[in-house]
Amino acid sequence: MKILVINGPNLNFLGIREKGIYGDKNYEDLCNLLEERSKELKFELDIVQSNIEGEIINHIQRAYNKKYDGIVINPGAYTHYSIAIYDALKSVNIPSVEVHLSNIHRREEFRHKSVTAAACVGQICGFGFLGYVMAFQALIDYLENSK
Amino acid sequence: MKILVINGPNLNFLGIREKGIYGDKNYEDLCNLLEERSKELKFELDIVQSNIEGEIINHIQRAYNKKYDGIVINPGAYTHYSIAIYDALKSVNIPSVEVHLSNIHRREEFRHKSVTAAACVGQICGFGFLGYVMAFQALIDYLENSK
Amino acid sequence: MKILVINGPNLNFLGIREKGIYGDKNYEDLCNLLEERSKELKFELDIVQSNIEGEIINHIQRAYNKKYDGIVINPGAYTHYSIAIYDALKSVNIPSVEVHLSNIHRREEFRHKSVTAAACVGQICGFGFLGYVMAFQALIDYLENSK
Amino acid sequence: MKILVINGPNLNFLGIREKGIYGDKNYEDLCNLLEERSKELKFELDIVQSNIEGEIINHIQRAYNKKYDGIVINPGAYTHYSIAIYDALKSVNIPSVEVHLSNIHRREEFRHKSVTAAACVGQICGFGFLGYVMAFQALIDYLENSK
Amino acid sequence: MKILVINGPNLNFLGIREKGIYGDKNYEDLCNLLEERSKELKFELDIVQSNIEGEIINHIQRAYNKKYDGIVINPGAYTHYSIAIYDALKSVNIPSVEVHLSNIHRREEFRHKSVTAAACVGQICGFGFLGYVMAFQALIDYLENSK
Amino acid sequence: MKILVINGPNLNFLGIREKGIYGDKNYEDLCNLLEERSKELKFELDIVQSNIEGEIINHIQRAYNKKYDGIVINPGAYTHYSIAIYDALKSVNIPSVEVHLSNIHRREEFRHKSVTAAACVGQICGFGFLGYVMAFQALIDYLENSK
Amino acid sequence: MKILVINGPNLNFLGIREKGIYGDKNYEDLCNLLEERSKELKFELDIVQSNIEGEIINHIQRAYNKKYDGIVINPGAYTHYSIAIYDALKSVNIPSVEVHLSNIHRREEFRHKSVTAAACVGQICGFGFLGYVMAFQALIDYLENSK
Amino acid sequence: MKILVINGPNLNFLGIREKGIYGDKNYEDLCNLLEERSKELKFELDIVQSNIEGEIINHIQRAYNKKYDGIVINPGAYTHYSIAIYDALKSVNIPSVEVHLSNIHRREEFRHKSVTAAACVGQICGFGFLGYVMAFQALIDYLENSK
Amino acid sequence: MKILVINGPNLNFLGIREKGIYGDKNYEDLCNLLEERSKELKFELDIVQSNIEGEIINHIQRAYNKKYDGIVINPGAYTHYSIAIYDALKSVNIPSVEVHLSNIHRREEFRHKSVTAAACVGQICGFGFLGYVMAFQALIDYLENSK
Amino acid sequence: MKILVINGPNLNFLGIREKGIYGDKNYEDLCNLLEERSKELKFELDIVQSNIEGEIINHIQRAYNKKYDGIVINPGAYTHYSIAIYDALKSVNIPSVEVHLSNIHRREEFRHKSVTAAACVGQICGFGFLGYVMAFQALIDYLENSK
Amino acid sequence: MKILVINGPNLNFLGIREKGIYGDKNYEDLCNLLEERSKELKFELDIVQSNIEGEIINHIQRAYNKKYDGIVINPGAYTHYSIAIYDALKSVNIPSVEVHLSNIHRREEFRHKSVTAAACVGQICGFGFLGYVMAFQALIDYLENSK
Amino acid sequence: MKILVINGPNLNFLGIREKGIYGDKNYEDLCNLLEERSKELKFELDIVQSNIEGEIINHIQRAYNKKYDGIVINPGAYTHYSIAIYDALKSVNIPSVEVHLSNIHRREEFRHKSVTAAACVGQICGFGFLGYVMAFQALIDYLENSK
Repeated sequence: MKILVINGPNLNFLGIREKGIYGDKNYEDLCNLLEERSKELKFELDIVQSNIEGEIINHIQRAYNKKYDGIVINPGAYTHYSIAIYDALKSVNIPSVEVHLSNIHRREEFRHKSVTAAACVGQICGFGFLGYVMAFQALIDYLENSK
Repeated sequence: MKILVINGPNLNFLGIREKGIYGDKNYEDLCNLLEERSKELKFELDIVQSNIEGEIINHIQRAYNKKYDGIVINPGAYTHYSIAIYDALKSVNIPSVEVHLSNIHRREEFRHKSVTAAACVGQICGFGFLGYVMAFQALIDYLENSK
Repeated sequence: MKILVINGPNLNFLGIREKGIYGDKNYEDLCNLLEERSKELKFELDIVQSNIEGEIINHIQRAYNKKYDGIVINPGAYTHYSIAIYDALKSVNIPSVEVHLSNIHRREEFRHKSVTAAACVGQICGFGFLGYVMAFQALIDYLENSK
Repeated sequence: MKILVINGPNLNFLGIREKGIYGDKNYEDLCNLLEERSKELKFELDIVQSNIEGEIINHIQRAYNKKYDGIVINPGAYTHYSIAIYDALKSVNIPSVEVHLSNIHRREEFRHKSVTAAACVGQICGFGFLGYVMAFQALIDYLENSK
Repeated sequence: MKILVINGPNLNFLGIREKGIYGDKNYEDLCNLLEERSKELKFELDIVQSNIEGEIINHIQRAYNKKYDGIVINPGAYTHYSIAIYDALKSVNIPSVEVHLSNIHRREEFRHKSVTAAACVGQICGFGFLGYVMAFQALIDYLENSK
Repeated sequence: MKILVINGPNLNFLGIREKGIYGDKNYEDLCNLLEERSKELKFELDIVQSNIEGEIINHIQRAYNKKYDGIVINPGAYTHYSIAIYDALKSVNIPSVEVHLSNIHRREEFRHKSVTAAACVGQICGFGFLGYVMAFQALIDYLENSK
Repeated sequence: MKILVINGPNLNFLGIREKGIYGDKNYEDLCNLLEERSKELKFELDIVQSNIEGEIINHIQRAYNKKYDGIVINPGAYTHYSIAIYDALKSVNIPSVEVHLSNIHRREEFRHKSVTAAACVGQICGFGFLGYVMAFQALIDYLENSK
Repeated sequence: MKILVINGPNLNFLGIREKGIYGDKNYEDLCNLLEERSKELKFELDIVQSNIEGEIINHIQRAYNKKYDGIVINPGAYTHYSIAIYDALKSVNIPSVEVHLSNIHRREEFRHKSVTAAACVGQICGFGFLGYVMAFQALIDYLENSK
Repeated sequence: MKILVINGPNLNFLGIREKGIYGDKNYEDLCNLLEERSKELKFELDIVQSNIEGEIINHIQRAYNKKYDGIVINPGAYTHYSIAIYDALKSVNIPSVEVHLSNIHRREEFRHKSVTAAACVGQICGFGFLGYVMAFQALIDYLENSK
Repeated sequence: MKILVINGPNLNFLGIREKGIYGDKNYEDLCNLLEERSKELKFELDIVQSNIEGEIINHIQRAYNKKYDGIVINPGAYTHYSIAIYDALKSVNIPSVEVHLSNIHRREEFRHKSVTAAACVGQICGFGFLGYVMAFQALIDYLENSK
Repeated sequence: MKILVINGPNLNFLGIREKGIYGDKNYEDLCNLLEERSKELKFELDIVQSNIEGEIINHIQRAYNKKYDGIVINPGAYTHYSIAIYDALKSVNIPSVEVHLSNIHRREEFRHKSVTAAACVGQICGFGFLGYVMAFQALIDYLENSK
Repeated sequence: MKILVINGPNLNFLGIREKGIYGDKNYEDLCNLLEERSKELKFELDIVQSNIEGEIINHIQRAYNKKYDGIVINPGAYTHYSIAIYDALKSVNIPSVEVHLSNIHRREEFRHKSVTAAACVGQICGFGFLGYVMAFQALIDYLENSK
């Protein structure tokens, strides 16, 4: 089983970016945690990050070409307006889970709406780094059930 | 550790209700699964269900009076308009997680907005019964971190 | 053939409530009329009323459990915002007809929209008590045709 | 007692038009049914159909000039935007009932709103041909009560 | 100097139509008054009325073909939604004045907006029959100034 | 003179609920204060509280049946969406005053709008417990003037 | 018969202000024209101008105190947002006519709506200075008819 | 203790202005009543009125300069759009109470929203002259509690 | 192969109508061009034009009755609001192509939305007369592919 | 070169008004700074302030009459709704620069929109007193370039 | 004559992407078809594709630098929100045609609006691959006519 | 002191792009001017330009990594929808000034709103190249004051 984690804009600035909202740990901490968990859960993991909307689409398409079984995606701010990423997720038809570190429903009005979640199996928000691990479990569960 | 699961309107009709969306398993199956998991995760669990908005508020208030550590809530259709439940969750100030069986972002426009999620730690949607189990983990993690 | 009539909030105050809109006859008059007609039309009739949104859902669920063939529902003010009642009607999948005593299109803007009618076979409004009798006929016709 | 049935645009294409929504029976079947019922209910019936908004207004005005006692109108798509037909119905002040074959609340958002219903005694939707017969009964009842 | 008066839907029902708003005088009274005034003001007058949106466009086009110098138009309810009439007035480029018997700003919200007035020299509303006479004066003044 | 105070959802959690907004005093303190004042102002007082929308309607209807002279109502969160409570207040036609502890205009956008106030004599907000006492005075004044 | 003309903000800058829209003639030209016409039409005329919203209200109130028979008002930009002027016109209950030099329906979206016209007998726009003269006629006609 | 009452546009026309809404008593009656009550409640009272938005701001600023302890303000129509008065109240930071004679929630849609109330301690509406007296009590109570 | 071209309101005024937008050539030029091309492309062509919304529906229905293989329609201004024409196109289920001479996206906001295009195979706009010829090709291609 | 600075409502309360937003310095400090800078930059400066919308228009008109070369305007709260000031700036056609002390895009939604900026050369916001000095430079630069 | 075809996000996934909407043929098939047609129509063709919004702008700018005569652009999902691409097309001022494979008017509400089409000569949608060929013809025709 | 200027999409096409709005000078002219001024004002300057939204975020992040003291940013069209750039500016927390060459308030409605300005110290628009120089001064002033 191969899972691709795609992180969107500004996630590489964790630990620098608005700590009151996103916490003190940095992006490397996140990657280490996810790799650790992937070993425990026994699946192959790759993590990519990009600030560029279209580069995120490229990563989604590569997931198709390289036959990943599932995608965990945090599209960052693009969540709220990128129809292009929504289309990309629908194009490749790989089971995907949307994750947000913060609870988007507690923040500005424009963050309440997700354009991309409708192309995913489900969405998890508000649980910090743990959200990604929960997404792994959900994906594994989903993939096993749809066999 | 004591967790209360509160299920809102029509969830007792799982297995009867729109199976294309909610699946074949019934409400008893859900309760059994959750009780099983609570034993594995070693916390005390209570599950209540009500179709009545104000009764859900009563359950939230009882959670305060009976000193529950956490709440897992699926407010069903009230998610989208019950400011009263939102207020109740804010009143008791118990860490809560909102769960939805279906991916609300894939359904009617009026289901995309959650009025109640802003009073919770976070929200999980789209993963069926598993979503509740994920919520348990998130709550346990949250409670341990905030000690 | 068994039909359940469910009357929503404030309908028990017919004869007291805004007579210019709802007329002089009281709730008992309505019930008597409906029982009379049910005998003529030869079906079994039960009538319930509740001011509580969730109690109306309970009645809808009991209709399922007690195997009613059809529902005539006047959700009163809940018509305009109760997604929960809408969901309940969809859950039980019993042919239902929505009735309003007054012509909702002639009144305040917020009464023009029905959230619940989309879960019914059809809607009748503006004909006072007669609307319920028309609903009986429509239900009987619908049930006979779908045999 | 003289009643005029006015059918709006595309109703003459019943049996051809989107059968999944409007059924297999054609416009002639509808007319035959209505004439049959008018004989049973002992009133004089005329049926007109037009695709032209202003022609429908002409028919409403003729109903006034020819002293019809009631109008049953299905304004088709004009229901949703014809202020002109609304004005015409208010001008002549003849008791009118609006009928729709399909349940307009189950269809596209723009069909949920009726501009014309506010000029009628009431509205019936979702019951196919039967809706017209129910409208006859409602009109007869209304006319008898307002004597 | 030749002026065409075009009256839209339901204006032929003056004297019958909602007298509280439009007064007791009938359509013939209006025509007589206008013809009288045209003689005093020494211009050639024609008056047409139609309930049909497209027929009103036909009249506007005939005004062009028959070389009328000015148009006085009361588009009735079409004022509020007929882009087609707006386009027709812009096509022929004949100085036009929009007239309404009632003060449209005092009535329903949907009557406050005029789609067609932007294709006219100006608009007059609220002065009953006198409005047409004022429109004659405005047109004559406009035509004399633009010579 | 008999006055009924009806408190809506979460008001029983005063002293627990968001103290920054609602203050430290608890619900019992409020009841005691009101009873004290009722003795000074020499009227009979009853106080009820419910978290359930329809139960609030039941209380309003009981006020009618038990011939209360006035109602002081704090519908809590239901203020902003309960057309059903609005209808109930209009049904019973008992002089009512709406009270809010906090200044609803200083809080979230969705709290600025009151659906229920239009069925009351007037509204008082922002003065904490004192608001109820002011409501007593306003009601007494109103009842004396309308004798 | 005494008529007061009230001109709102920036009208004193006619001849300076955006000539493409308002023409070359200046404010004195307008006043001279109106005084001339008042003599022909044999009524007493006063003309005031103010850039200050509340000063316009003062003028409206003075019209009441000094027993003017009618008001011709061009509220300029205040037309589009001054509920205070609307209230003032309703307070004094003197027949008023709203005039605009330009055709407000041809200009920016925000000029299409008149807040103040609903408190007037009617509105005239698009005819330049002539509009005021037309307003005189309409007022005289109105006053004579309501004797 | 010194309190300033500021009355906005058209309040000086009480007794003349729309009596169905505002009653028969005139502005002098209001002032007399308030002065009487101020003597009973033993505080120094000044009352000002202006139709001019900016003059109301001047009064608010004078309240600051002359060290008034509290303001009772009825901003009339400016309530609904004057961000400038809102800013003025926030600038001076003097405890203020907003009063409306009529129940603004029962009137036109545009009167339901108060722009200025958010800068006040609270708001009272619908109780006629009594509302001002209630505001006095609320202010006195507020000032005593915040000592 | 038989194709019907239906032109809506004001298209017969090409060459007269707003030349800056629609060009100098007149309606006859358009018809001649289309007939020429139909001969080259070897299909039978009929062209109709009407200013009347319902007449356009009549033409669409005749296309069904006379077994046309395809429709090219330019609904003119009705494009933006005629649900009735949309319904007619869906009723007959004949492959249709919507054409506009001008680029509707460059013009007024209200021209950006097409109500009717959703009932067509596709839409072409902005290419003047050529757009009709492109529509012929698209229809021929579509019909050949769906054989 | 003569420049007029026009300050709108509440700016005279700098140093008193919401110091968290506007800082500690008072209005006199601002005036002194601007006069100092005007001497350095060698132009004639006048500064006016008014809380009255129409008085601001009067100042703009005086700028025209007294032949000022440029205007620096901070319309305060009127920025967001005064079409009248927008019209005044367009009337006089003097190069103007809009200044705001605070960054209006960081504050309430209703402060994000400027109605008046469209009548200016440009807008500067967020730089406190310095913004006025920047406006001087921009005006001088603009005037020199347009010579 | 040199034409550049620019394909936006996800078009390289034709044949993989939602086949029910976009068909079975893949991106290479599209390119081959277009090259074939370019030879028949005797113009020089280049085709580029990018998932990155800004890269599409780069391609538009290169079209300017390399003196292309025309652009055929399918901006994919960016059609609906990329003001940046709209600006780029306006910057280079090269005749452009917008193409969409599917009929955007039949799909989700958010696909009905094109932000970019207003910067093009025209738009073609709903005809699959053929749309590009039609765009070639339209461009050639446009370029020949504007010589 | 080190300042980074970041120019967004299409700014490299100055001198080519819509000259009526942006003027004749080209991008090189802008860069030369800014470098000249940086020398006069004695700070280190770097200028970057990109058409790619995410590349602009990369530049913002590099500004953090390379310890720039301030940012001057013209996000071009991304100003109006890039929440991602807004987030990036908030992430790095470097004092930033937003600049626009044209007065965005005079142009299309969609350009009036800035999504990104709220993450900046302030915004300058409408002054062409000079706006950047003003931004330098504002930044220097801001940095000196916050020492």
